Amino acid sequence: MAQQKPGIPNGTRDFSSEEMMKRNYIFDTIKKIYHKFGYLPIETPAMENNSVLLGKYGEEGDRLIFKVLNSGNFLKGVTDKELSERNKNLLASLITKKGLRYDLTVPFARYVVKNFGTLSFPFKRSQIQPVWRADRPQKGRYREFYQCDADVIGSKALTNELEMVQITDEVFAKLNMKVKIRINNRKILTGISEYMGHKDQAGAIITVLDKLEKIGEEKVIQGLIDRGISPQGIEKLKPILDIAKKSEQLQEKLKNLLKDSEIGNQGIQEIEKLFQYLNQFEFKNKVVFDITLARGLDYYTGTIFETVSEEIRIGSICGGGRYDNLTGIFGLDNMSGVGISFGADRIYDVLEKLERFPVKKYPKVKALFINFGEKEEMYCLKMVENLRNKNISAELYPETAKIKKQMKYADTNSIPFVILAGENEINEQKYTIKNMQSGKQTTLSANELMEYLK
Amino acid sequence: MAQQKPGIPNGTRDFSSEEMMKRNYIFDTIKKIYHKFGYLPIETPAMENNSVLLGKYGEEGDRLIFKVLNSGNFLKGVTDKELSERNKNLLASLITKKGLRYDLTVPFARYVVKNFGTLSFPFKRSQIQPVWRADRPQKGRYREFYQCDADVIGSKALTNELEMVQITDEVFAKLNMKVKIRINNRKILTGISEYMGHKDQAGAIITVLDKLEKIGEEKVIQGLIDRGISPQGIEKLKPILDIAKKSEQLQEKLKNLLKDSEIGNQGIQEIEKLFQYLNQFEFKNKVVFDITLARGLDYYTGTIFETVSEEIRIGSICGGGRYDNLTGIFGLDNMSGVGISFGADRIYDVLEKLERFPVKKYPKVKALFINFGEKEEMYCLKMVENLRNKNISAELYPETAKIKKQMKYADTNSIPFVILAGENEINEQKYTIKNMQSGKQTTLSANELMEYLK
Repeated sequence: MAQQKPGIPNGTRDFSSEEMMKRNYIFDTIKKIYHKFGYLPIETPAMENNSVLLGKYGEEGDRLIFKVLNSGNFLKGVTDKELSERNKNLLASLITKKGLRYDLTVPFARYVVKNFGTLSFPFKRSQIQPVWRADRPQKGRYREFYQCDADVIGSKALTNELEMVQITDEVFAKLNMKVKIRINNRKILTGISEYMGHKDQAGAIITVLDKLEKIGEEKVIQGLIDRGISPQGIEKLKPILDIAKKSEQLQEKLKNLLKDSEIGNQGIQEIEKLFQYLNQFEFKNKVVFDITLARGLDYYTGTIFETVSEEIRIGSICGGGRYDNLTGIFGLDNMSGVGISFGADRIYDVLEKLERFPVKKYPKVKALFINFGEKEEMYCLKMVENLRNKNISAELYPETAKIKKQMKYADTNSIPFVILAGENEINEQKYTIKNMQSGKQTTLSANELMEYLK
Repeated sequence: MAQQKPGIPNGTRDFSSEEMMKRNYIFDTIKKIYHKFGYLPIETPAMENNSVLLGKYGEEGDRLIFKVLNSGNFLKGVTDKELSERNKNLLASLITKKGLRYDLTVPFARYVVKNFGTLSFPFKRSQIQPVWRADRPQKGRYREFYQCDADVIGSKALTNELEMVQITDEVFAKLNMKVKIRINNRKILTGISEYMGHKDQAGAIITVLDKLEKIGEEKVIQGLIDRGISPQGIEKLKPILDIAKKSEQLQEKLKNLLKDSEIGNQGIQEIEKLFQYLNQFEFKNKVVFDITLARGLDYYTGTIFETVSEEIRIGSICGGGRYDNLTGIFGLDNMSGVGISFGADRIYDVLEKLERFPVKKYPKVKALFINFGEKEEMYCLKMVENLRNKNISAELYPETAKIKKQMKYADTNSIPFVILAGENEINEQKYTIKNMQSGKQTTLSANELMEYLK
């Protein structure tokens, strides 16, 4: 190999079969639970029109969307003047019409509007597909990664929120992870901003509050001052931050403080009702109201969720919330919905670190037949077929290689049993089976072998 | 909705949950059989470097690759002169470094070379992922579609070819489709070209022969004349085409004709050995040697396969072959391998037309609980949870809507059972269940209900 090895684009990954087995274990767990709750899968194309993608994720998001060069003569329709001016945004808009999906939420909104006539509401769907972002690659952040979303749209009822918590709890219980499910309501955060005298700056206040756990109260306050929040506002916030630290009578105290904010009150009512539902059920994980939870995304308008591991500090591993007007960007108003999204890559990292993958569930094949030559080959191929017909995965080493080489193949592929059938075995219509872990060998008849491997 | 409905790029598709269920039925069938034969799944990134993709699919292929605009300032490094010259190939190479995967074979070769040190050979893998081609969209041809590949690399043994036929036969048997598996060997086609006195034009001859079934013998001969094949060559081909029509003693007659062509002989020997293997097994579908099978792709060097439906005329639904030097393009020589690829979209069309999808296997949820109000809601939610804990998918209609609306929801979502629990039922701790198909109603206790829905 004189040439340099071919690489793959920065921030993307190959997945080996071992990694795929583990990833599929996560996806399959989520899929099964989504299905049980009535969230059936849909898929949307990897490419969406730029008119669908752009302007939906903020300026930063627009920059991070991978744009696909128009096929054919992409310079057609671009004037010499436009080329010579080197305005990259303008030129990009002229030579690309499509981009790669940045998340699953905007394509979902587009799907609902495009297929409006054929859907029945409330419409539930799940979607597990890769997304692409031209982020700077770093540890744990990739340019291609999977999202695992479930959303219900066309219903304002808080039983949907209950369902999201039930799904989250069950997924992590099935994955054998201990997590904390944090819940808040954007209306409460807006109410707090109103109470502080800065209702119009709710967005900025939410962004700063979101960092409370990471940077601490002092820096949060400094951040708010930097954003122009008044000293009076800050003074009013402090007791709320104090309240947030204690869990006793949180809702009562908050209700009292926010009594003059209509939207704040509405948020508290929603939280109260949601917790009335939640309190009727037993969860395997902690489910807590946390007024410091903010979530970054713009489109949330009601309940917000975020789940963190209680065993490893790795950030949010599942998040979501209610949006009142997601499809509004495509001209379909008044469709309230709520959704969650599992972060498969982080969940993978947690399970890997905690060694929680049920490795024993992932055999390659169960038995390798050693290839001694042409005559033995056919004797073995027949048995391989019989085993496969019983749904036992088995294979014959394809060539008459040295036995040592064939044994090594079984070893590196973690094949638990090796079967040797030479002249003696054929004469007696038997098979010698070797347990690769214990080294023990036994000679069995065809029926015994099938029983043994079942 | 004053705005225009948002569209999706030409040649791409949304998949509804009903379509997804059917597609997954095909994918799952293939996956399960691949796994049983030891072909474990891997995945590669959607984007590959242009250096990996370009020059691998011919000039036409290069044009059909979707290229991804470099992120950030893509004009950096492009001079004013280069811009003003408007050379689209040059400019594309300057402003794009990556493209979308065009098939799964070249990424597989790249994967093997990149991960050479960690793989053990013979290396088997399966891969089911979408690919993208900027083809002109038309009925049955999409710009985004899935391929379902299995390959083994690092082994020349014909038992691998046997395995490919076994897999193909089993997949279509499981899918309840009747197919014909056609087999040929590129060496025989090269041998025929040699016999015709045009060994150096084997590629062109293969391309024309490939159309025999579609355009007939006369037009094939005209095509060969157009490509400069000599009259003597054509005369020698005619008896071969005659032989091809009859199946008796095909190999014998061919052996006689090609006795002076070393490569032709080699091809016949390989076919003979492969059919010796194949004749030891019973197949559910026809498996035939067909010297008019050619396959378009350049990289095949030995056995080639193609499967067609015996029930519907739709072209190849599974194809593949042996390649002696696929990884050579990345500097790793002497790695012979063989692979097949199922065309999921065409298989879908066949199953749809023949109504062979086992629809009954795809329930949305089994039971919908009607929402009568707050009190009844909690009574039902508890039972929904109990059912889900028994792996029975059920849901409560999230809001207290009109019963007619809720019933319609069950109907449009094909939910087979609706459960009504009003004040009477709650007082008696019972549930009234309605079979949506027969219209019959019964009132059951909690335990009876769970038994009933199981």
